[in-house]
Amino acid sequence: KKKKDISFSNRGKTLEDELNETNSFYLQRGLAVIHKKPVPVQIVRVEYPSRSAAVIREAYFQAPSTTDYNGIWQGRYIDFEAKETEIRTSFPLKNIHEHQVHHMADIIRHGGLAFLIIRFSSLDRYFVLPFETLETYWKRMVTGGRKSMTLAEVEESSVEVKPGAFPRIDYLSVLHQLMK
Amino acid sequence: KKKKDISFSNRGKTLEDELNETNSFYLQRGLAVIHKKPVPVQIVRVEYPSRSAAVIREAYFQAPSTTDYNGIWQGRYIDFEAKETEIRTSFPLKNIHEHQVHHMADIIRHGGLAFLIIRFSSLDRYFVLPFETLETYWKRMVTGGRKSMTLAEVEESSVEVKPGAFPRIDYLSVLHQLMK
Ligand SMILES: [Mg+2]
Ligand SMILES: [Mg+2]
Repeated sequence: KKKKDISFSNRGKTLEDELNETNSFYLQRGLAVIHKKPVPVQIVRVEYPSRSAAVIREAYFQAPSTTDYNGIWQGRYIDFEAKETEIRTSFPLKNIHEHQVHHMADIIRHGGLAFLIIRFSSLDRYFVLPFETLETYWKRMVTGGRKSMTLAEVEESSVEVKPGAFPRIDYLSVLHQLMK
Repeated sequence: KKKKDISFSNRGKTLEDELNETNSFYLQRGLAVIHKKPVPVQIVRVEYPSRSAAVIREAYFQAPSTTDYNGIWQGRYIDFEAKETEIRTSFPLKNIHEHQVHHMADIIRHGGLAFLIIRFSSLDRYFVLPFETLETYWKRMVTGGRKSMTLAEVEESSVEVKPGAFPRIDYLSVLHQLMK
């Protein structure tokens, strides 16, 4: 068994934490402006206590209609969804919503960059998977094929990003490899 | 007094409603992919009743760190904030947060398009104001000048959009005029 370099392991952080750190780094260095969108919530009831802030007392999570992150890098529109899995041998496609796939297809059509960032949490491995690849395997699923990509399929059709310190997950550094 | 063309008045719709309709139109016609970001909310307590959806029982509104809308149009990154006012003679700058101004400045620096859409609700008039203009008047305010733009200043430094039916507020049609 390979000895793990503990100094670069995710140490229990979520992928979202890691990407937020990375995006802050990019922003501070003037490399890109990329933000996570807020979680969509349907607000049903709000209380307005006197002399203090409004309190939301009833609200529900909504299915996201787009992806988690978007922004601008080198004049280009960037759009991606981040997903992590504890599974060691495959990446399940069921966590991705159909309207997210349509959204990313639209982005590509309009000249933007769209991709997934996948973390295999148990392996401490990170991949940037171009939308075109996702679409291929999504179609395989929709036409009755397997509901996941094998790790080997992910390895061969995406670019691996080695986690580091600053920035944590330097996904922008591999985007040129995804653009023909 | 000028007779108002009632068929194109806003009829009590919010500017957000009008822009969401407009963006749906753009999306369906394949003209642009632009979405409103969800309202940022800090979630404190969630209940998980058995056999039904999770309910958020305590949450608070957060100040937005970016703008309301972003997306892609003709390969370009688009970013804007929408504001309406009932005032007939000026547009108050106090509703715009300083970090939103910094955010839009960053977007311009990275090659994106950033602007405000302003509705004078009582006048049924709509303006697309380029970020550079906002920045000018923002600096006037910060250096001790007036805390608003006069209607005349808005008129002379932005492009007016006449409301219609489909799309409701065709702001994309004037963006070429904002780009040198
Ligand atoms: Mg996600
Ligand atoms: Mg707004």
